[in-house]
Amino acid sequence: MIDVDVIGIRVKVPHNQPIVVLKEHDGNRYLPIWIGIVEASAIGLAMQGVDSPRPMTHDLFVQTLATLNGVITGVDIVDLQEGTFFAELFLVSPDGQTHVIDARPSDAIALAVRLDIPVRVSETVMDDASTTIEERDEEEQIEEFKAFLDQVNPEDFQD
Amino acid sequence: MIDVDVIGIRVKVPHNQPIVVLKEHDGNRYLPIWIGIVEASAIGLAMQGVDSPRPMTHDLFVQTLATLNGVITGVDIVDLQEGTFFAELFLVSPDGQTHVIDARPSDAIALAVRLDIPVRVSETVMDDASTTIEERDEEEQIEEFKAFLDQVNPEDFQD
Repeated sequence: MIDVDVIGIRVKVPHNQPIVVLKEHDGNRYLPIWIGIVEASAIGLAMQGVDSPRPMTHDLFVQTLATLNGVITGVDIVDLQEGTFFAELFLVSPDGQTHVIDARPSDAIALAVRLDIPVRVSETVMDDASTTIEERDEEEQIEEFKAFLDQVNPEDFQD
Repeated sequence: MIDVDVIGIRVKVPHNQPIVVLKEHDGNRYLPIWIGIVEASAIGLAMQGVDSPRPMTHDLFVQTLATLNGVITGVDIVDLQEGTFFAELFLVSPDGQTHVIDARPSDAIALAVRLDIPVRVSETVMDDASTTIEERDEEEQIEEFKAFLDQVNPEDFQD
């Protein structure tokens, strides 16, 4: 498995669909994963340290985990089939057992950025789907995410 | 607290914004709560027994709960402030303690329909925000939800 950093949310033209970008920690390969608008917000807002006035779904998830003394120790992006990525969570229960739970990468990453836990990508997935794009500075990434938020329908986030 | 049934997802014109409708179990009052598109799908698809090919966020939540032997015994809609509803989950940990956790009603209801647990609404919220609308038959509700899904952007659900 390859250690990666969650770089940020980008928006792809022409359909303005968000992607979350992972970057090889000890290398220069980037893995873009297409995600939904709500999932992109769940990741991007947490990365920017934006506090939601009410608990969003992944915040509730994290609080429930803490209440039950469950610990997610890391998430892996393990497979890519017909354009769909598959991820796994490593959940340690209070008795010390580790449970592997299937997840969508967007949920796995939304939890990882809140819990500050490692994200890894399998060699095969990285070989198949990574690109080598120029790194962009942080300011530009934030501008992109703000622009993304501007074009989002606020109704998507109501309640 | 008043016991309610989750009746279904409706779509309000002109903005096609979804609402989830709760109905007083022993009465004729309905409580409509505006929610987001993704949350509406999380509730509506589970109510229709639609299996997602991959675990959606609330499915992952439910599986994590089960892995940690946590049990949500019910959800309450407890408050309404400036048009925003507030809910609570009752989470019982393996040691038998009950923890009350703040949640958005959409998350609470999305979990409730998966776990088949009671939903209740406070008397005050019901008095303030309920309406008495005619009951519609099940077929009509499903048609409405299908129409809602037709107008949803599939990109909202990718990944």
